[in-house]
Amino acid sequence: MSEITRDIRHVESYTVIFQPGNVKVADVPAGETLLRAASRAELFLTSPCGGAGSCGKCLTRVTRGHVQADPHPSISQSDWESDIRLACASRIIGDVEVEIPVSSGLWAAGSVGERRLEGRSRGRLLDVAEWRLPRDLASDPPVKRVAVRLAPPTSDDRTSDASRLEAALRSQHQLGAVAVPLDALRTLPGMLRDGDWTLTATLRETGCGWEVVRVTPGLDAAPAVVAAIDVGTTTIWGELLDCASGAVIGSSATYNRQIQFGEDVISRMVRAQEPGGQARLRQAVMASIAEVLTEAEAQSGIPADRVEQVTVAGNTTMICLLLGIDTRYLRLEPYVPPLDRLAAVAVDGLGGTLPMAFGAKLESLPSVASYVGGDVVAGILASGMADRDEVGLYLDIGTNGEAVIGNREWLLAASCSAGPAFEGGGLRHGMRATSGAIEAFSLDPHSLEAAILTIGDLPPAGICGSGVIDAVSELLRAGILLPNGRFDLSVSAPGLRLVDGRGEYVIAEARYTASGEDIVLTEADVDNVVRAKGAMFAGVTALLKTLSLDWADLDRVYVAGGFGRHLRVEQAMSIGLFPEIEVDRFVFVGNGSLLGARMVALSRAMGAKAAVIAATVNNIEFSDSLLFQEEYVAALFLPHTDMSRFPEMERVLARSKGSR
Amino acid sequence: MSEITRDIRHVESYTVIFQPGNVKVADVPAGETLLRAASRAELFLTSPCGGAGSCGKCLTRVTRGHVQADPHPSISQSDWESDIRLACASRIIGDVEVEIPVSSGLWAAGSVGERRLEGRSRGRLLDVAEWRLPRDLASDPPVKRVAVRLAPPTSDDRTSDASRLEAALRSQHQLGAVAVPLDALRTLPGMLRDGDWTLTATLRETGCGWEVVRVTPGLDAAPAVVAAIDVGTTTIWGELLDCASGAVIGSSATYNRQIQFGEDVISRMVRAQEPGGQARLRQAVMASIAEVLTEAEAQSGIPADRVEQVTVAGNTTMICLLLGIDTRYLRLEPYVPPLDRLAAVAVDGLGGTLPMAFGAKLESLPSVASYVGGDVVAGILASGMADRDEVGLYLDIGTNGEAVIGNREWLLAASCSAGPAFEGGGLRHGMRATSGAIEAFSLDPHSLEAAILTIGDLPPAGICGSGVIDAVSELLRAGILLPNGRFDLSVSAPGLRLVDGRGEYVIAEARYTASGEDIVLTEADVDNVVRAKGAMFAGVTALLKTLSLDWADLDRVYVAGGFGRHLRVEQAMSIGLFPEIEVDRFVFVGNGSLLGARMVALSRAMGAKAAVIAATVNNIEFSDSLLFQEEYVAALFLPHTDMSRFPEMERVLARSKGSR
Repeated sequence: MSEITRDIRHVESYTVIFQPGNVKVADVPAGETLLRAASRAELFLTSPCGGAGSCGKCLTRVTRGHVQADPHPSISQSDWESDIRLACASRIIGDVEVEIPVSSGLWAAGSVGERRLEGRSRGRLLDVAEWRLPRDLASDPPVKRVAVRLAPPTSDDRTSDASRLEAALRSQHQLGAVAVPLDALRTLPGMLRDGDWTLTATLRETGCGWEVVRVTPGLDAAPAVVAAIDVGTTTIWGELLDCASGAVIGSSATYNRQIQFGEDVISRMVRAQEPGGQARLRQAVMASIAEVLTEAEAQSGIPADRVEQVTVAGNTTMICLLLGIDTRYLRLEPYVPPLDRLAAVAVDGLGGTLPMAFGAKLESLPSVASYVGGDVVAGILASGMADRDEVGLYLDIGTNGEAVIGNREWLLAASCSAGPAFEGGGLRHGMRATSGAIEAFSLDPHSLEAAILTIGDLPPAGICGSGVIDAVSELLRAGILLPNGRFDLSVSAPGLRLVDGRGEYVIAEARYTASGEDIVLTEADVDNVVRAKGAMFAGVTALLKTLSLDWADLDRVYVAGGFGRHLRVEQAMSIGLFPEIEVDRFVFVGNGSLLGARMVALSRAMGAKAAVIAATVNNIEFSDSLLFQEEYVAALFLPHTDMSRFPEMERVLARSKGSR
Repeated sequence: MSEITRDIRHVESYTVIFQPGNVKVADVPAGETLLRAASRAELFLTSPCGGAGSCGKCLTRVTRGHVQADPHPSISQSDWESDIRLACASRIIGDVEVEIPVSSGLWAAGSVGERRLEGRSRGRLLDVAEWRLPRDLASDPPVKRVAVRLAPPTSDDRTSDASRLEAALRSQHQLGAVAVPLDALRTLPGMLRDGDWTLTATLRETGCGWEVVRVTPGLDAAPAVVAAIDVGTTTIWGELLDCASGAVIGSSATYNRQIQFGEDVISRMVRAQEPGGQARLRQAVMASIAEVLTEAEAQSGIPADRVEQVTVAGNTTMICLLLGIDTRYLRLEPYVPPLDRLAAVAVDGLGGTLPMAFGAKLESLPSVASYVGGDVVAGILASGMADRDEVGLYLDIGTNGEAVIGNREWLLAASCSAGPAFEGGGLRHGMRATSGAIEAFSLDPHSLEAAILTIGDLPPAGICGSGVIDAVSELLRAGILLPNGRFDLSVSAPGLRLVDGRGEYVIAEARYTASGEDIVLTEADVDNVVRAKGAMFAGVTALLKTLSLDWADLDRVYVAGGFGRHLRVEQAMSIGLFPEIEVDRFVFVGNGSLLGARMVALSRAMGAKAAVIAATVNNIEFSDSLLFQEEYVAALFLPHTDMSRFPEMERVLARSKGSR
């Protein structure tokens, strides 16, 4: 998820012009490959290896400017001298113009006209970080580290060590109430004298003034470090944050080890009621969080004992299981959550350990209802929809899908069980949107040859949410996949095959993959995707109907989820996850829960805003709703049973049918 | 110490008139023995068994009214029919008149005239509890237990369990901010439903609103229970308190197990600096506190898990050692304490266990300086001197003696090392002022026969502070003990004897004692008493001189200490512990540290007042003071080297010398 934050830090950027078509891509960060830069404009070059530099097929010619490129056996000496380069092995170091030679078998350029590119790519999602994330997020962090100089005591000034420190902190750092609790007091006398009456103090805001968490002798400018964690039903995402700059200094993710106790929140709650079940579930999620923090710490080089606080966002069930709160009544009428907000608790008291500082605290974002948790509140906060007058839709596409409609005045939320397909769960070769995941897939509409892109430009290891949306969409548009989710085996397409009587499609061939085995999409995978997108679409449609609104009334759609950064709106429309409304209305939040947790971790004002949001949101239960059920059944088709709702896709499918 | 509180609870009381002399003693509580009632008027009856009912010598005759008496072999049938009764075995059940027959060998009545009894006995100290202790002390306790009824949730009201409880507490119990922390939250959902939406909550004031400590299903009227502890260098005193009524429901005391590491605070600090020393000292005091609480709990019948908070008062060293705070710098110039106040801390975090509720907290009274601790602040609070315009002296007579002079405007404190003699420490047969301790001693000035009273009217087990002051005074006044602290072996007195070349005096004969051995006062014991009283007297005198005041300028002297309730002002004047000023100026506080701790334990307002007192007190260091040293050396005599300061005692001694 650290990609989201790239824009916060300053990186040089350049302009790349692709020919033919004169496609201009601005603001490409230095060091990005030509293959990536092309994909920003929906230009895909043949790349069955995912951009890992092994297939040697993404040939281009640099016609103006220079790139930093590696040679490859597929490029002869004379071609090299004619500035032929592999797009995936060419890093941008200045403004360049590049020709994608149709003659060398590349196909993407031909489709540019067809996709009517104008200005910003229609397929790209506007990043919420570019768009509205406050630049001064870390101006009021709840944890800080400050240096102080104290006047030594004299026989005329026998103020206690603690009061002396409190007074110095108040006057030198414009703090209000400051207290020195016992843990800090125990070492304070020695530290003060060891540092010759200079000291560095770590402070935490308690909701009732500041407290001194820890003191070290001498003046030290290193910033305080906190963590933000998204505790998802399927995946745990985490970041380490520098409280002074707001920068993300490490990030990681892992599957939630609670998956062994069931894939959805209901089965987790059932297992929690078994003898010892609650402790087992708590230990599982604690171990997963520990793993994420350990990896993020290794990345950042920050030792565990520097991490003072962790802010977690998660659905109500996840937070209750983490905190060891009985979830028995969460799933009983009238679906009342045990808590909506909670002051920071000691990590030590959670029945497990985390790689954090002694005395570290954990705070959780406030939840709204049994099935609308702090993850949604975090997402609403991250999206900024609660700051605006226009009516927005926040859509969190995850194992528990959530939809919120509203603005600064009102917010109405609903949730649905979508399953883990968009997080790579429940798919034969599904994986999280991390290194090696196929995050983009494209088919040449004429040759049916595939192009893929992997996260980190590594050999493909599996397919993540955005990749699977691309794949289902592209295969559907090409007529390889039918609206009922079955493959059309009468089509002759490379990669399509019959196994055990059912169709499947090879996304990446064994010779290019990390495991050395084919990465495939099966009909069972497609079924899971259809159920997931059907539940999300039905949830939003039912929520809109409850409000007597229509999709067209939404000024803005904020899309969050762990599917990967490369989600393309048109592809999501093609499969019926999104309706066919203007692409410009969509804003990409990424992991909204994690981003919201980061904002609260870094800013007391954001924490207060999260509490206001939680108190504003109303919740509607669809669990027994006939309206939702009808919409869900109608959505179990690609893109939908009612094609009048997807007129453009109806045209595309008619054309692809007619072309055969 | 529960005697102090007797007056808070309603007990029937009666008037007893003793003859000859028509000595009227009012307000004698029902059930008290005639022997005790007589001692209230300084009338002592021969009682070498201490009032335990074994010697059969304290014969009296009831001439009007009735007592509830036990027979004794020393009373014949005809004497019984003539209403002859043992004073120690006669309990008062109504107004009575009693004759103390001179003819039967009783001696005390003869001294009544001599001691010029008028109205209230000159020897008795006015009890601070009778005098000024607020009656409504428990009106704002920091811990309370309240019952609430909640409206069950419906599909129209899905407020979380925690918010529902908070709202009910706020509206039904006029509380401000209420929070439900994690520990309570974990059980809340089940408790709410088990109790059919009725609940009993234990609440604690955090300095930032109330928090729910614990919940139980159903409505329960039992009050919250807290504890108050005086952590003395020598003795740990403790009480269990009913937060609703303010009543003391159990009390106990034990020696501080830190004594094994040295008798005074300096040696404790030295030992704390050894490797592992701090932990050993902490464990020792924790074990002592645990013992006191366990005994108080057994007495009250309250289970340990009902005790929610403990308020401790102690000197700065004791509190630092208890909390595990480095004491290294306490004894270095400029004598700066590590802390002056501290928010309540979790008992769990103290490196030991106490028999208290899960999650129980410990709070300590604020200290003033290295050698003026929270025990003194507690005592000032208990005495009420900081509420008054008149100039008072607060005198805490303990191992660390403390003196504070001032009023509501200003307070100046000093401390001195007096040693443990007045707590029964360092004496051959010294003991704390608990059951079986000889708390009063009297000599017939003519026959030199002794009368003793023990706490609880039990066979004598040892001698406590008030008993030893009585004994030294009575022996001095009788000429048996000389002003230089040596026994005059030329005097013929029962009990005086030579052992290994040094004089000693038998206070209680072996046949009456609990151990079956003589209880004696040795010259070494007297030396310890002289040093202790000398340090206290010198400390106050030096403090007065610093302020250009004289003993006569003191409107009120508040006397605190663990010497026992039976301290007699005249006796303390005789030995030079107190100066010869009007007896009426003296007020008995008893264990001021414990009483102040009780007040803070029961009342948030008292906690706030303690903080104000701590901030008001200034401290003067006598450790290197020549003034103090001179006064100390001058006071190492009975009563003093400068007899012009003790004119009455000068007369008494001249007379006793002359009489021989």
